[in-house]
Amino acid sequence: MFDVTRYATAAQSIIDAGRFLYDRGWSPATSSNYSARIDAEHVAITVSGRHKGQLSAGDIMVVDLNGRPVQSKCKSSAETLLHTVLYQIFPDVGVVLHTHSVKATVLSRLAAASSTLNFEGYELQKAFAGVETHEGILSVPVFDNTQDIPALAEQSKAWFLAHPEQPGYLIRGHGLYTWGKTMADCLRHVEAFEFLFECELETMRARP
Amino acid sequence: MFDVTRYATAAQSIIDAGRFLYDRGWSPATSSNYSARIDAEHVAITVSGRHKGQLSAGDIMVVDLNGRPVQSKCKSSAETLLHTVLYQIFPDVGVVLHTHSVKATVLSRLAAASSTLNFEGYELQKAFAGVETHEGILSVPVFDNTQDIPALAEQSKAWFLAHPEQPGYLIRGHGLYTWGKTMADCLRHVEAFEFLFECELETMRARP
Amino acid sequence: MFDVTRYATAAQSIIDAGRFLYDRGWSPATSSNYSARIDAEHVAITVSGRHKGQLSAGDIMVVDLNGRPVQSKCKSSAETLLHTVLYQIFPDVGVVLHTHSVKATVLSRLAAASSTLNFEGYELQKAFAGVETHEGILSVPVFDNTQDIPALAEQSKAWFLAHPEQPGYLIRGHGLYTWGKTMADCLRHVEAFEFLFECELETMRARP
Amino acid sequence: MFDVTRYATAAQSIIDAGRFLYDRGWSPATSSNYSARIDAEHVAITVSGRHKGQLSAGDIMVVDLNGRPVQSKCKSSAETLLHTVLYQIFPDVGVVLHTHSVKATVLSRLAAASSTLNFEGYELQKAFAGVETHEGILSVPVFDNTQDIPALAEQSKAWFLAHPEQPGYLIRGHGLYTWGKTMADCLRHVEAFEFLFECELETMRARP
Repeated sequence: MFDVTRYATAAQSIIDAGRFLYDRGWSPATSSNYSARIDAEHVAITVSGRHKGQLSAGDIMVVDLNGRPVQSKCKSSAETLLHTVLYQIFPDVGVVLHTHSVKATVLSRLAAASSTLNFEGYELQKAFAGVETHEGILSVPVFDNTQDIPALAEQSKAWFLAHPEQPGYLIRGHGLYTWGKTMADCLRHVEAFEFLFECELETMRARP
Repeated sequence: MFDVTRYATAAQSIIDAGRFLYDRGWSPATSSNYSARIDAEHVAITVSGRHKGQLSAGDIMVVDLNGRPVQSKCKSSAETLLHTVLYQIFPDVGVVLHTHSVKATVLSRLAAASSTLNFEGYELQKAFAGVETHEGILSVPVFDNTQDIPALAEQSKAWFLAHPEQPGYLIRGHGLYTWGKTMADCLRHVEAFEFLFECELETMRARP
Repeated sequence: MFDVTRYATAAQSIIDAGRFLYDRGWSPATSSNYSARIDAEHVAITVSGRHKGQLSAGDIMVVDLNGRPVQSKCKSSAETLLHTVLYQIFPDVGVVLHTHSVKATVLSRLAAASSTLNFEGYELQKAFAGVETHEGILSVPVFDNTQDIPALAEQSKAWFLAHPEQPGYLIRGHGLYTWGKTMADCLRHVEAFEFLFECELETMRARP
Repeated sequence: MFDVTRYATAAQSIIDAGRFLYDRGWSPATSSNYSARIDAEHVAITVSGRHKGQLSAGDIMVVDLNGRPVQSKCKSSAETLLHTVLYQIFPDVGVVLHTHSVKATVLSRLAAASSTLNFEGYELQKAFAGVETHEGILSVPVFDNTQDIPALAEQSKAWFLAHPEQPGYLIRGHGLYTWGKTMADCLRHVEAFEFLFECELETMRARP
């Protein structure tokens, strides 16, 4: 049983985030899914296949940390486990956002198989929680896209247990996963990632 | 004779779609035309040459499935037959949108004559109705631009009778045609196509 | 003496156009100037150096067809003669817009000295008044930038007297001039030119 | 002691500027900092780490020309000295804006170490205060990014005492600093710089 007010607050933060992310072009054509923690055992998450710029209360459901619906007959995103695994391993994580921009898609397809993209020397790296200097390295693994979501959930779990300081990953041809303590933190991470992806692509174009 | 309320509802959906598509830059300079089915014999369609971001009731007329005006002295788009042929061959189609973006124009001009663009491995392919995986191939034929619209209507009819599972085509230097059961489906298809076109162009630029 | 209501209507159309053009990024940093004909001898035109997205009544003055202020102590744009020469040679012209986009600037700098850019096979060429097919050639001369505005006015006058069917020109590193019977026509021309400029630049990038 | 009304006016101008700059994508993910002079000894400046598109009164504090907080327990930006040094050396400067766009970041990373970017032949150079022709050269130094802000403050001071007619500089991988007499002047400079940065990057892409 979860607190209804905490659910409603989480749902509203997802609705507002959807409007922002859709307007930026980062969640087109009913792609993407978003979640926010209600408590130690429950997560609010978008129902599968909804328009992310037009979310309303009926588009947000509750799942437990194993991804099973709670008090709902709706079907959550096919990728629900990719969200819940992060809430399992990081008790501090309050929000997970999966977005689907052109830049993330293109960059992830250009990357070599099972590679890691490294970002270095960008002042904006400081936008990630806990980063105090642009002199470190931000590492973003690129996982292969697969219809086998439980396998991908295990792969991401293993990688981030080994690299808990890193704030996100890409799925090839698919998009970005990132998280944070609060919705504001997580949206800042999405913005920072999109900025860095665009910088990388602009640099590739300008330097042939 | 058509039901007036069904006409008015179809017209309003076209007006709203025009505002969205114009704001995205996909229907500039009075280009593009849109239609929505009223019933088995009638289609609401934009009057020729109107500003697509400023449509109002007087800019939407009715034609039959042969493209002839019904209860109207207005002139429908020169490309009306490209719309009506789709309503003829696909009884499920409720909306046809023809848009005119920079990306569609450039990509269609870069394509070889009478070629087909294939998209593969993009998660966003799932945005098209009936597609459950990114592992299939989305095929988009590029027809040559011509002033002979009846000939182009026949060409598109033949191609899509042979490939009824494919959701759209390009006309070289001209733009995109796509369709769907509802306006929401068809707008989702436009968004997904524009996403894929932009991905392809970004990839060409980054990988010389 | 000019009719005050015609002046006020012309001024309002310029104010509205400025908001649109600035929002598109085509008139940044107080660049650009706009005019609209009041009658056979008078033109409303933007005062020099104003923010084009924040124009109000006090930012629009009146000049005669030789560019001299009428009933005003304001200073009109340094390029006023480039506007008035078009009203002189084309009695049908009701509006002249000079915009200043990144695309126009870059394309004009990439062009060879005193060259003409030709656009062919674009469906959007039909957006220009009087063009019925995409099979013609749209020719856009690129004049060298100069501080000698009377000389440039004469150069543009000579070129367009010889090519009255062409709808605009570029000044190198500077921007676009285009015109039309009405503000709606002229804004459609700006949109169509910007579309074509972007197509050309996108094509250059994608085809190395 | 500073005049409270002058502080409040300066703060409001910063709040409004933040909304504009964030909407353009030039201050993403809590990056950037802005300041406005209150009097000969005091400057209003953004508090460290705030969302620049959602600034309100509590996000603007006061510092003296040595960067020390005045009547405040807030922490100003880590880069406060880069602002105050400009108010010290240029008594006419009323506003300093530091922005953080993709274009500025990419261009500054592509530039050679300790180089100066030169812009020439752009009509938009006239957008900078005191520039009457596009025939001069706009020189923009690119300083290396460093966590040693006092050293960078000294470096920028020395460079601009030697080149007082130049309106801004870049920090590598970091962003733009520019200034002006008024907020309108300074925003015009930001717009003009962003225009020129985009032109340069577009040109690099199109001319391989």
